[in-house]
Amino acid sequence: MTYNFFEKDQFSPINYNYSDVVEIYNEKSQFQKIQVLEHPFFGRMLVLDGIIQLTTKDEFFYHEMLVHPAMITHPHPREAIIIGGGDGGCVREVLKHPEIDSVTLVEMDIRVIEVCQEFFPMISAGINDQRVKIVSQDGLEYLENGSFAFDVVIVDSTDPIGPAKRLFSERFYSLIEKNLNIDGVFVTQSESLFFHLPHVIKVQQNLKNLFKMSYCYTQALSTYAGNWWTFSIASKLIDPRKVLRQVDGNFRYYSPEVHMRAFLPDSIQNALVSGKLDW
Amino acid sequence: MTYNFFEKDQFSPINYNYSDVVEIYNEKSQFQKIQVLEHPFFGRMLVLDGIIQLTTKDEFFYHEMLVHPAMITHPHPREAIIIGGGDGGCVREVLKHPEIDSVTLVEMDIRVIEVCQEFFPMISAGINDQRVKIVSQDGLEYLENGSFAFDVVIVDSTDPIGPAKRLFSERFYSLIEKNLNIDGVFVTQSESLFFHLPHVIKVQQNLKNLFKMSYCYTQALSTYAGNWWTFSIASKLIDPRKVLRQVDGNFRYYSPEVHMRAFLPDSIQNALVSGKLDW
Repeated sequence: MTYNFFEKDQFSPINYNYSDVVEIYNEKSQFQKIQVLEHPFFGRMLVLDGIIQLTTKDEFFYHEMLVHPAMITHPHPREAIIIGGGDGGCVREVLKHPEIDSVTLVEMDIRVIEVCQEFFPMISAGINDQRVKIVSQDGLEYLENGSFAFDVVIVDSTDPIGPAKRLFSERFYSLIEKNLNIDGVFVTQSESLFFHLPHVIKVQQNLKNLFKMSYCYTQALSTYAGNWWTFSIASKLIDPRKVLRQVDGNFRYYSPEVHMRAFLPDSIQNALVSGKLDW
Repeated sequence: MTYNFFEKDQFSPINYNYSDVVEIYNEKSQFQKIQVLEHPFFGRMLVLDGIIQLTTKDEFFYHEMLVHPAMITHPHPREAIIIGGGDGGCVREVLKHPEIDSVTLVEMDIRVIEVCQEFFPMISAGINDQRVKIVSQDGLEYLENGSFAFDVVIVDSTDPIGPAKRLFSERFYSLIEKNLNIDGVFVTQSESLFFHLPHVIKVQQNLKNLFKMSYCYTQALSTYAGNWWTFSIASKLIDPRKVLRQVDGNFRYYSPEVHMRAFLPDSIQNALVSGKLDW
């Protein structure tokens, strides 16, 4: 039986068969199908291989919550690297921190960057900043073949299927640890606490083996499957659950209060890391 | 253009066209279409007029988060009333508090209670408890034609369309205020902070006019449209954001830490009540 639960949902601004979506661009790049769609509620949407990556309506929740907790945790973030994130949303947020001297954006598919510069100028504008260096390469290979000293590492990947799978491997995390300064902070999007619980558990366990501190925080995101989205943050020195310094970053959603409330309570964090969480 | 964003989403446990749903019961009651479906990930689902009301996979998030913050806020909750909630999930949670002497369940559609007793015995079992009194009537009419002194009022309604619309009116809230004890606490589900923001603002403003304290707290819920679900809580005496007493209630998710983190930060709460929140 096929069922559309939302066909009668007169109280919601969208219908879930997306019959009101208009495609304004599509191409098949070397790596994936890239589409730009227009939706009456969500605005413009970036879709890769059929999966929504961002919408202009709600991308700020995701990008602010991925970037700022890590940036605020570091006492003086000068060198940042973003792996994935060709849309430029993370670059935009990183550049809100005046301490930043350099941002390396490692995006395998250069066409994502170019398409976003054309269709999402408000999101990708920061990519033209002179502090930003673009590397068109797989993130794991880039770290493997160099030697770096980053303050903050941000992984803004697609789902862990296909090429993005290695961006969730223990090997990748250990390369990140090796290329992070002593007061460095690492954060990655890590899928849904409800839909992808076994995956979140694995990420948390891998990080616990490599870093002095690692925690999970969450944000409800309507456009991603499972909605209760997790971010996994790890630190070599400073507790990322506390906000120790102030930044006036002109944020739409993020604040120190949002930051502190977003972390899982200890009892759930402990159950998650021990693999006992089950729902 | 009709688009199924999730047809290629190999990393999620569900497909959003619900092609793997099996209907095990349906009827047209006096008020609505009642369906019971079975889903490989969500388990058994109650669907009213085509909208998911609960799934056995995740109903505990909703019911625990609707009931316990209000119950814990009251210093000695003896008399509770639940308006809506014919599935029995709220009754089950209220009865976890040993102080309770009486629970009135006001459910307009008696067939919802009966269907849930047959198909969701784990959720509705509490309805047979001798402290529970069932009233088959519209909630607003029930309060209008009586005089009560409740400690806790819980509104577990469907979306504010059709008959449930009056359960979000200022008139209804003022009847609740009149029938609440001096240390009484009121809570209602109040839709999605993302999809239904104008509605949440209106509920919060109505409550602010009637109660000494009123706040919004949230929980990510995958089965409801908009997902970032709100609960609006109001109190005559005690600040519901704090947890002042301990209850060992055998909860699957709720805890004092979950309670305190669920409330919106002051800046967002204030923007919400003033109607300035906009995303």
